[in-house]
Amino acid sequence: MTYDPATIQALKKDASEWFSTLRDNICAAFEKLEAEAQGPFFKEADEGGHFERKPWTRLDADGNPGGGGVMSMMRGRVFEKVGVHISTVHGVLAPDFRSQIDGAEHDPHFWAAGISLIAHPWNPHAPTAHMNTRFIVTTQAWFGGGADLTPMLASKRDKTESDSAFFHDAMRKACSMHAPAGSYEKFNDWCDEYFYLNHRKEPRGTGGIFYDRHWTGNPQQDLAFTKDVGNAFLEAYPEIMRRNISKEWTEAERVEQETQRGRYVEFNLLQDRGTLFGLKTGGNIESILSSMPPRVRWP
Amino acid sequence: MTYDPATIQALKKDASEWFSTLRDNICAAFEKLEAEAQGPFFKEADEGGHFERKPWTRLDADGNPGGGGVMSMMRGRVFEKVGVHISTVHGVLAPDFRSQIDGAEHDPHFWAAGISLIAHPWNPHAPTAHMNTRFIVTTQAWFGGGADLTPMLASKRDKTESDSAFFHDAMRKACSMHAPAGSYEKFNDWCDEYFYLNHRKEPRGTGGIFYDRHWTGNPQQDLAFTKDVGNAFLEAYPEIMRRNISKEWTEAERVEQETQRGRYVEFNLLQDRGTLFGLKTGGNIESILSSMPPRVRWP
Repeated sequence: MTYDPATIQALKKDASEWFSTLRDNICAAFEKLEAEAQGPFFKEADEGGHFERKPWTRLDADGNPGGGGVMSMMRGRVFEKVGVHISTVHGVLAPDFRSQIDGAEHDPHFWAAGISLIAHPWNPHAPTAHMNTRFIVTTQAWFGGGADLTPMLASKRDKTESDSAFFHDAMRKACSMHAPAGSYEKFNDWCDEYFYLNHRKEPRGTGGIFYDRHWTGNPQQDLAFTKDVGNAFLEAYPEIMRRNISKEWTEAERVEQETQRGRYVEFNLLQDRGTLFGLKTGGNIESILSSMPPRVRWP
Repeated sequence: MTYDPATIQALKKDASEWFSTLRDNICAAFEKLEAEAQGPFFKEADEGGHFERKPWTRLDADGNPGGGGVMSMMRGRVFEKVGVHISTVHGVLAPDFRSQIDGAEHDPHFWAAGISLIAHPWNPHAPTAHMNTRFIVTTQAWFGGGADLTPMLASKRDKTESDSAFFHDAMRKACSMHAPAGSYEKFNDWCDEYFYLNHRKEPRGTGGIFYDRHWTGNPQQDLAFTKDVGNAFLEAYPEIMRRNISKEWTEAERVEQETQRGRYVEFNLLQDRGTLFGLKTGGNIESILSSMPPRVRWP
């Protein structure tokens, strides 16, 4: 994961701009869904939603400006709650964390940019989705991220079910373009391993891909792969939403959805490395916890 | 926290029986509240609730019987969800945990009994409550536990508010009988320190008492103190419930309550040592997570 200093500045700029472009494209696709949906809608929500953007800035541990980001949140009639956040942060890692981040052991300077999305639809038939990609630079550099699907109804929590199969096809295609051979299989396994609730001994959802410390030595290709993942998500998830949002649901299905969301909360607060790292390092609480489902049950 | 082996067996029996007796008394008091309440009730719940008991057994790491417990859960018209659990467990601590438990470094045998309660009332005016006391024996022995109140409405989240002041008076009285001088002040501070959400920089509720590794050298007195805590809770909390359960509430207050419950979830999954220890050591998931609030919002 060593890099050529002469090219890293341009790569940072390209990556940062890409995350912003992808955010714009995803928000536009989700607002289109909100505008075109025909229902049925929940009585609490009958107007098409629009994203609200909120910028935030970060102070580094030493009190100097440390970058920031923009949260985009929408509460609509298709999406009960969805956040699409971008950030570009930099500074000096606190001593406690230097040994945990590759390449920061002897030089604590870091730079990181990324996009992070979690979508909680109203309709229990529509799966919850997560997508996050990032570019990190210390004395080493690498890409990481992934995208995965979490159907809320037990009847749909199977990789071979049509929504999940469609999502996996999109991720397989993304891996086939600019990632090394065998990447989909490897990243699919990694995803299943990562999004596994240890205490319940059950998977969070039906998977997707997860990758980290991705650095083939060809940074342009690695950035292209990260773009492919974002574009695959943009193609697949709105289409999966379109297939589900006009379906009628029962009260029992809504209860099942809200209960399954509890597993999402458990995973995020007990296991998710990004969430825990953010909370422990004084990250933006509002942004980190904006991924929490809007209504949840533990019956 | 060293003990006289000749007396420890009798103390284990006394403590274990006390937790069972306290459980019976608390369940009876809560069922009385359910039976006598006049409303208003939520439309989802109009019948008085009764506790359902469910025994469970524990296998020790070596596959031998390791004790067990009884869960008592009630979902009624006053209590949306309340659990009052007792357990008596014993065995050999896994190697990873020996250094974390006093007196287990060189001899991994342990014995522990306790009672644990979390009550989530329907009415947003009624505070959530937690009470837990325990007796633990390794090569050392000690009592631990406490009780604390979490008002759900911002207007009531103040130690001087009448419910919280009444609760603190009861805990102060409990500390005045069989605990060393100054215990209330010490245990009150300890409670505030323990039930503090680090990531949000806010207290979970209005406190109460928290104590651990309690061992004065007079075990009968220490058990008597632990009984005083349980009895104080039994006197104070049902009375606080009676003062609140006939109050009308608004939809906005219900939303505020469900949102505040999110903080309870965050504390339990991010910080509570008992919850995290239980989940990581293969404890009874159903019992450990039965404390989660029934309906929660992260708006």
